[in-house]
Amino acid sequence: MIEPDFNKGEGLLPVVVQDHASGEVLMLAFMNREAWLSTLATGKATFWSRTRQSLWLKGETSGNVQLVREIRLDCDADTLLLKVEQLGGAACHTGHRSCFYRRFADGDFVTVGERVFDPKDVYR
Amino acid sequence: MIEPDFNKGEGLLPVVVQDHASGEVLMLAFMNREAWLSTLATGKATFWSRTRQSLWLKGETSGNVQLVREIRLDCDADTLLLKVEQLGGAACHTGHRSCFYRRFADGDFVTVGERVFDPKDVYR
Repeated sequence: MIEPDFNKGEGLLPVVVQDHASGEVLMLAFMNREAWLSTLATGKATFWSRTRQSLWLKGETSGNVQLVREIRLDCDADTLLLKVEQLGGAACHTGHRSCFYRRFADGDFVTVGERVFDPKDVYR
Repeated sequence: MIEPDFNKGEGLLPVVVQDHASGEVLMLAFMNREAWLSTLATGKATFWSRTRQSLWLKGETSGNVQLVREIRLDCDADTLLLKVEQLGGAACHTGHRSCFYRRFADGDFVTVGERVFDPKDVYR
């Protein structure tokens, strides 16, 4: 049986999250084995928060949960790709649809992504 | 000016590589500042190989260079997204178009991605 290799990266694997319908890359986060098993059990993207050092059900606070539609593993078994249905229309805590809302142009990054919600209304 | 924050992750940031036309996620690799500057200077995706501990011009051996069409930075400035034109039609050293050629189904990962070349013909 093929499994993600949590022996690499000190037990944390990067996880690319992509909108299953549009193909837009929404965010990157990390999973340890516990987060992986929780994601499988619940069908909701669950990560390991490196900042808080705790399990992180994505959308727990904002309601913007990610329903997992497909899971891919890369050739080295050390990176995961989740194709998700993004509830609430936005993955980013800034209110943008994707965390990658800044585009490189003329030596700087400029905001191009659309904002779906105002963080002040969501995180109180 | 906004810049990728190479002070995080011990100087290595994860980089998601996506096909600029199809939206398919091709691979994940890492960049240090040197790889970032080289990518900007050449327009070709250049990473830091953690295995070889050296700069890695993607496609140097196989010819499957990635021409950078767009660069995005995430909200925390610690992850990059490259939208590329993948020369040779395949990003993965296994000959698959994407490194994420294995899909989770019934408790295991099964190969679903198409193989574009035979590695034996490319890496001699």
